[in-house]
Amino acid sequence: MTTSATLYKGEKQIFVKMVLDAWRTQNSRVDKFLAEVSDEQLAWPAVLGRNSGLYVIGHLTGITDGLLPILGWGERKYSEFEETFVKRPYDPEVKIATAAEVRKAWKRVNEIAEKKFSEVEPDEWFDRHTAVSAEDFAKEPHRNRLNVIVSRTNHQSYHLGQLLFLTKNRED
Amino acid sequence: MTTSATLYKGEKQIFVKMVLDAWRTQNSRVDKFLAEVSDEQLAWPAVLGRNSGLYVIGHLTGITDGLLPILGWGERKYSEFEETFVKRPYDPEVKIATAAEVRKAWKRVNEIAEKKFSEVEPDEWFDRHTAVSAEDFAKEPHRNRLNVIVSRTNHQSYHLGQLLFLTKNRED
Repeated sequence: MTTSATLYKGEKQIFVKMVLDAWRTQNSRVDKFLAEVSDEQLAWPAVLGRNSGLYVIGHLTGITDGLLPILGWGERKYSEFEETFVKRPYDPEVKIATAAEVRKAWKRVNEIAEKKFSEVEPDEWFDRHTAVSAEDFAKEPHRNRLNVIVSRTNHQSYHLGQLLFLTKNRED
Repeated sequence: MTTSATLYKGEKQIFVKMVLDAWRTQNSRVDKFLAEVSDEQLAWPAVLGRNSGLYVIGHLTGITDGLLPILGWGERKYSEFEETFVKRPYDPEVKIATAAEVRKAWKRVNEIAEKKFSEVEPDEWFDRHTAVSAEDFAKEPHRNRLNVIVSRTNHQSYHLGQLLFLTKNRED
């Protein structure tokens, strides 16, 4: 039993690493983008007629800030980002946080999330998140915390595809 | 041992489902995009000054067509797509496949991949893919077949973020 249990834990660790590696890769791509883009470029529309680059970064920040409450591991740090960048659609007439404020918040929410992620045991990732009921989770055990990261990583990739053309040295 | 082994297999099944569900979600979003976009719209640049929508769909098709060889489960069906849409960067002067040809190939490569994915046992997903050596895999067991899908799903999300503004009824 011991060998099997160890292997079992080891396999979970591998899953967690696969998902968190993908998440970290996307985060580092956003970091690289932010290091290359000017505040002026961030004000340009990232998608024709919609969403400035700054709004998209604020949106990603608000989503990452919401990870810990969804996972049941903490509270939001910047609840105003949820209001401005998640609940409310982009409106060029509405004044939002400055580039400096959004850059700082992006960095901070990722530090907080990364600190928590590096602390938790693999088993904890396979428990249910707060947006799924115990009854539903019993029937659908794939709706676990790690699955939230799978989904959020794709969400980040999606928006990254819209952002990168704001800088001259874009990557594919 | 039996219970533990079953649980162990069950956990793998859950993880496979998480990754394949994300993959299928992105595929169905591309399908939805293709159902809404006209061939004329597909000829527009998806990213300013770069990559028509048609090129991006051809690129995603070439990447998905390359999945089975990388996973060690089959051959490419459209090797010309690798030449045109993967190895060669977008060039507006170069004649590429028509929208009808690309749409058909996209559908076909996804059918072939989906058929294989639905047949294989969970354990097979955790073996190494053909681009990693046995020595490296022993040290880095997360470089398995399923991890290729995690990566490709994010790749698809990334390009989807560039495509959706070609249609009027875009989604976030």
